[in-house]
Amino acid sequence: MPAERRASIVGTGLIGASVALALREQGWTVSGTDADGVRTREALAAGVIDAVGLDPDADLVVVAVPVSSVVDAARDALVGCPKATVTDVGSVKAPIVTAVNDSRFVGGHPMAGSEHDGLKGADANLFQGATWVLTPTEMTETARYAALRATISSIGADVVELPPERHDALVALVSHVPHLTAATLMGIAASSAEEHATLLRLAAGGFRDMTRIAAGHPAIWPDICAENRDAIVAGLDALLAALADVRLAVADSDRPELLRRLELARAARINLPARVAQADELVEVRIPVPDRAGVLAEVTTLAGELDVNIVDLEIAHSVEGDRGVLIVTIDAQAADRVCDALTSRGYRPAAVPIGR
Amino acid sequence: MPAERRASIVGTGLIGASVALALREQGWTVSGTDADGVRTREALAAGVIDAVGLDPDADLVVVAVPVSSVVDAARDALVGCPKATVTDVGSVKAPIVTAVNDSRFVGGHPMAGSEHDGLKGADANLFQGATWVLTPTEMTETARYAALRATISSIGADVVELPPERHDALVALVSHVPHLTAATLMGIAASSAEEHATLLRLAAGGFRDMTRIAAGHPAIWPDICAENRDAIVAGLDALLAALADVRLAVADSDRPELLRRLELARAARINLPARVAQADELVEVRIPVPDRAGVLAEVTTLAGELDVNIVDLEIAHSVEGDRGVLIVTIDAQAADRVCDALTSRGYRPAAVPIGR
Repeated sequence: MPAERRASIVGTGLIGASVALALREQGWTVSGTDADGVRTREALAAGVIDAVGLDPDADLVVVAVPVSSVVDAARDALVGCPKATVTDVGSVKAPIVTAVNDSRFVGGHPMAGSEHDGLKGADANLFQGATWVLTPTEMTETARYAALRATISSIGADVVELPPERHDALVALVSHVPHLTAATLMGIAASSAEEHATLLRLAAGGFRDMTRIAAGHPAIWPDICAENRDAIVAGLDALLAALADVRLAVADSDRPELLRRLELARAARINLPARVAQADELVEVRIPVPDRAGVLAEVTTLAGELDVNIVDLEIAHSVEGDRGVLIVTIDAQAADRVCDALTSRGYRPAAVPIGR
Repeated sequence: MPAERRASIVGTGLIGASVALALREQGWTVSGTDADGVRTREALAAGVIDAVGLDPDADLVVVAVPVSSVVDAARDALVGCPKATVTDVGSVKAPIVTAVNDSRFVGGHPMAGSEHDGLKGADANLFQGATWVLTPTEMTETARYAALRATISSIGADVVELPPERHDALVALVSHVPHLTAATLMGIAASSAEEHATLLRLAAGGFRDMTRIAAGHPAIWPDICAENRDAIVAGLDALLAALADVRLAVADSDRPELLRRLELARAARINLPARVAQADELVEVRIPVPDRAGVLAEVTTLAGELDVNIVDLEIAHSVEGDRGVLIVTIDAQAADRVCDALTSRGYRPAAVPIGR
C-alpha cells in the first residue's frame, strides 16, 4: 500500500478548489485554507477539502491566490510545511520565482479556466488536457521537480517546462498583449459615438471574434499588467513597431509588402495547432449555415449516423456579413462521406485539409 | 401587370451572381457580363443570368468587379445603359464615388460573403438580413435613389445610408484596421520561431478568436488598403496613439487607468448588438463543455424537446485554456426551464442577460 500523500491548498477559489478535488480523486488527503474564512468553511462543507488549515506534514502545497499575494503565501507555506514542495498557479512567473527564491518552490501556471468563479466552478476534471506550465530553475531540486511533474500529469494536465522569463514573454505575446489590443480596438470603435449604432451594424463577424475577449471581467488585468509589466511593455513595443511598419506600407500603397505580411500571418494562423494531435490526417469541413440552430442539431446527428467522430466544431463568421460558417473537424478519410451526405441534404460543404 | 424590369450585372463572381439570382427571383430580367468570357458563359449555362452582355435598356446596372476596376466599369455602364441607375458593391466608397461623379451612380457595399468564391457560392438568399450600405450624395437623383433602395430591400438586405467618406472611415475601424492588426499580432507570435510549438500551445482560445480573420485569403487586401488608404492610415494612427497610451499605463503600473479603459471596452463589447432585435428579452446561457461534439447534439436536441428556439449559438473560449463554452441565446422566459434541464443532465449552465 502506498504511503499517504498529503497536500494543502492555499486559496479555495476556482483553481484551488479544482486542484483539491483532482488530488483527492488521486487519493491525496487535502487540507485547505483561504484568506476568506467563509470560503474555507464552504469548501469543507462542500467536500472539496478534508480539513481546514495548512498541513505541517504536507508533501505538496499549491498556492492558488491572486498573483499579487502569491509571494507572501508561498513564503508562509515554505515555513509552515517544512518538507513540502510548494508551487503556485499565478499567470506571471519571473517576479514570483525570483522573489520566493527557494529550492523547494517551483512556479506553475495551468492554462485552464471556467465560466464560473470560485467554488461553484470547481471541477476535478478542469485540467484534463490543459497545458500546465512549470518553471523550474537551476536552484530547483531535481527529485522534487520530477515528483511535482508526475503529480500534475496525474490530474490530466500536459506539463510544459519553460524558464520563468520565457513563460512571461510568451504569455505576454499570446494573451496579455492581444487582450489589451482587443480592448483598445473596441474602445476606438466605441468612441466613434456619434454613429455608434451604425458602426456596430457594420461590425461583422471578424470584428466580433476579434473583440470577444474584451468582454471579459477586467478586474484581474491591472494585477496581471503590474506583475508582468516588463514582458507586456516589450510585447506592446514589438506590436507598435510592427503596426508602424504596416501603416507605412499602407500609406505608400506598398502592395508586395502588405501581401508578404498577410501571407506570413495566414500561414502561421493556419498552422496554429488544433486541440488535437495528428493534424495532417484531419480536414475541416466548412458549412455555410444561414440558420444555425436547426443546422447544428442536423449536422451533429448526421455525423453520429455516419459513425464519424467530430474532433472539433466551431462557428466562425465571414470577414464580411453575419452568416455563420460551421467548421467541423473530422478524420480526413471520412470527409467525402460527410460532404456527400451534407450535399444531398442541400448544404454546400467545402472540405479543407488542415495545415494546408 | 407591372412593366418589365431589366438589370445588368457586370462581374459574375460570388456577389454579382448572387445579385443576379436574387433579382431574377423578384421577377427581373437580368443580363450579365464578365471580363472572363468563360465565367460569363458558365453563368448563362447555370441559369444565373438570362442573357450575355450589357443591356442597353437596363433600369439597373450592378457593378460587381474588384475595387480597382469599379470606376472604369461604372463609366462604361453609364455610357452603355443611358437610362440605368448604376451601383457597385466595392468595399471602399469615397474614391469610387468621387471618380465616377455622376447623378445616376450610387455607391453601394453589401456586407455579405461566403466560404465559396465565384459562381459556386452564388445564392439568391445571400443578402437576407445582411447590411447593405448605400452612399448617395447631393448629386444623386432622389427618385433613382428611392427606387434603388427599394430594390435592395426587396432582395432581403437592410439598407444603411452613409456619406461615402463616413462609410470608409467606419469600415476602416471595424474591418480593415482589425484585420491588419490580427495579422500583425499573428506575425509577431510567429516570429518567436525558436519556441513556435510551445508558444502555440500557450495560445488559448482568446488568441485563436482574435487571430482567426488572419487566416483569410490575403489577395484582396492590397487592393482594399490602396483604395481605402487614407481612412486606414487614420484608423491605424488612432490605434497607434491609443496603444501607446496603454503601453504608458502598463509601464507606470497605472491600475486605475488600465481598469478604466478595460471597463469601457467591456461595456462597449457587451453592447455590440446580437444578430437579432429585442436583445433585452434574451439571455445567453453559457455552458462549459469539455467535450463539445457530443454536447452539441445533446444541447440542440434538448432545446427542441423543450420547444425552445435557439436564437443564436456560438462556441467561445475562456481567456485561458482550451475548454469551450457553448453560448446559447434563447428567450429570457425559457432560461430557467433550459438551465434546470441542463443541470439535471450534469451541466453547469449560467444564464446571463444580454446587455448586462
